[in-house]
Amino acid sequence: MQVKDCLVSAPGKTILHGEHAVVHGKVALAVSLNLRTYLKLKASSNDKVCINLPNIDTFHCWDLSDLNPWNKLCTKDEAQRLDAELVRRLRDFVGFTNGNLNGNTACLTFLYIYLSVFASGELPALTITVWSELPTGAGLGSSAAYSVCLAAALLSAAGTIPTSLREWDQTARWCQEDLEHINSWAFQGETIIHGNPSGVDNAVGTWGGMLRFLAGKIIPLSRVPLLRILLTNTKVPRSTKALVARVKDKINKFPSIMNPVLDSVDAISYTCEKVLTCEPITGEDYSILEELIDINQHHLNVMGVGHPALDTVCRVTLAKGLHSKLTGAGGGGCGITLLRPETDSSVVQNTMQDLKDCGFDCWETNIGGPGVQQHSPSSVKEEILEILEQY
Amino acid sequence: MQVKDCLVSAPGKTILHGEHAVVHGKVALAVSLNLRTYLKLKASSNDKVCINLPNIDTFHCWDLSDLNPWNKLCTKDEAQRLDAELVRRLRDFVGFTNGNLNGNTACLTFLYIYLSVFASGELPALTITVWSELPTGAGLGSSAAYSVCLAAALLSAAGTIPTSLREWDQTARWCQEDLEHINSWAFQGETIIHGNPSGVDNAVGTWGGMLRFLAGKIIPLSRVPLLRILLTNTKVPRSTKALVARVKDKINKFPSIMNPVLDSVDAISYTCEKVLTCEPITGEDYSILEELIDINQHHLNVMGVGHPALDTVCRVTLAKGLHSKLTGAGGGGCGITLLRPETDSSVVQNTMQDLKDCGFDCWETNIGGPGVQQHSPSSVKEEILEILEQY
Repeated sequence: MQVKDCLVSAPGKTILHGEHAVVHGKVALAVSLNLRTYLKLKASSNDKVCINLPNIDTFHCWDLSDLNPWNKLCTKDEAQRLDAELVRRLRDFVGFTNGNLNGNTACLTFLYIYLSVFASGELPALTITVWSELPTGAGLGSSAAYSVCLAAALLSAAGTIPTSLREWDQTARWCQEDLEHINSWAFQGETIIHGNPSGVDNAVGTWGGMLRFLAGKIIPLSRVPLLRILLTNTKVPRSTKALVARVKDKINKFPSIMNPVLDSVDAISYTCEKVLTCEPITGEDYSILEELIDINQHHLNVMGVGHPALDTVCRVTLAKGLHSKLTGAGGGGCGITLLRPETDSSVVQNTMQDLKDCGFDCWETNIGGPGVQQHSPSSVKEEILEILEQY
Repeated sequence: MQVKDCLVSAPGKTILHGEHAVVHGKVALAVSLNLRTYLKLKASSNDKVCINLPNIDTFHCWDLSDLNPWNKLCTKDEAQRLDAELVRRLRDFVGFTNGNLNGNTACLTFLYIYLSVFASGELPALTITVWSELPTGAGLGSSAAYSVCLAAALLSAAGTIPTSLREWDQTARWCQEDLEHINSWAFQGETIIHGNPSGVDNAVGTWGGMLRFLAGKIIPLSRVPLLRILLTNTKVPRSTKALVARVKDKINKFPSIMNPVLDSVDAISYTCEKVLTCEPITGEDYSILEELIDINQHHLNVMGVGHPALDTVCRVTLAKGLHSKLTGAGGGGCGITLLRPETDSSVVQNTMQDLKDCGFDCWETNIGGPGVQQHSPSSVKEEILEILEQY
């Protein structure tokens, strides 16, 4: 079986408001982050299935003859619940021995989706190469973007969803039903990688834009504008689990003090959603967005998930008139800084330099952009295309 | 009439928790600040009444013969409501022309209390000298400490309250009834100086310790321990009126976000009061007090009354493991830093030096100490005694 080549990408995600509060029944706003993961799927003629993940130094090939027996074990499951037994067996097959845990998990995820999507048919020889602009392990949904790309590319290759890119298109997206299909497989990928994911990351990778997340329910919000931001990675390592526990402990210790703070964060998310879903966004709206960012950053500090490095991000950017907050678990990790449409590029460049001088990684990007999409090669930045073409 | 010499002092005040929130119906905790104002009253034999206020470069003498006619205008009023007409006339008498507004107001306040206290009797010749450790106009209750000292010394001199210091006493205080008398006259002094005072500052100056202030009611709290603190004056000027208005605007703009923050501040005050009124204070209690300080400082930033200089105070002290918040109106002004009983004096000295290196004034002092008291000369620091003896 010969598959059609394709090139897809999916965005990362970041939390605009409501991190931690969401654990306690409050709203969170998750937005797509336009640092994207790109996946190139190429038909191969050498009876091999290969995956190249240069970001994490992972390169694997399997002979089709070795994979064919596995195909018999997979059933095409439209309900798409994770087949835990298959995962367990594949884990043994991949062999988690060489210490590259992320690489092995990524291979396992690929094989699981590949085998499942082509179940009951002929396995195609193909090479998949993935390159991501996202730092890994920074709470930016890099694993979800990977799973979404895998699902989109493999479902397209299998003909389960159409290859909707026409000759004259730069990019193309899928219809709602196809996106649900992609999201569902991506969620299985996330489950393999994370065990018990919330589903937010893969939903953002699939639909893009902004999602309201409340009590386990994910509601995509329509007509959210693209917002310019700086994303800063302080590179301070942290444990999300420990931070979530710290917030919980503080709420238990000071319920009368902390519960109102969660209520206030909830109101911040609602206010932000209201501002962003009433286009056009005015200068006054931007002032409100900046105030909400400042207030929430203080609240996150009250919850005990701040960090001196994040304070530095806030201080350095505020010195340029820009407003920042941590995003995600906090305790280090990443911060986002809102830029206005009119913010001069020299201000942006100077701010980025100041942040880099602090030892941080910093990107100018935007939030609220499209979810998973297909690309014509000409719509992909040359340096990314070059990396993808190397394999 | 020959009066007995006396030496009295009254503390400043600072807000431990609840500044701004108190304007919106929440609790505030006001505490005495052991930077004190000292007043020496000395009988004089030259038929003059003199006041020396070296802190504000104000020195005035009046001939008794010029003051005697005023005495006829004063009625000894036990209900002690301010006689606005008398104030108006005295204002003309003092003559507010030389540009030293604080000095003139201080003289007016003195004359008002002096004439009222000795009303219907013979006016005594005396010299009053006041020296304060408190910076003026920094929201630390310096005017109230002045009024409290005036009231205590003049009421003692007039025999309205006893001169309770016995030969072998270092210091002495008055009974509850006498304190109420002092407080009532001090409140009139505050009214002359501020127009519409809350009454908190003079109550703290009179009773010392800690007071709960809620919806205009002032409740002294018993058995509050003395807490070591650093007081830092950033010397950034600010307008309390403008800051109060800013908070009100923010609440009106974002009620659903801001009202929970006020609720949280309220809970902070109650929690703090609970911790402080359950002696003995343990190490764990100090950790709680530190956490409350940190949380409230973030909340005050949310209200928009922070300032980069106050952030600096917090950062510099936190680098030494110490916790700080602004106190009072914010937007500059003063910050307090909690010290533990066991905090090493070298840590304190280093921290004070770091704060002074930032251009701030800094004092090691304590909060929760006694209110107005009488002193034997030997109980007053020599440098203060020297200043008072100069006049």
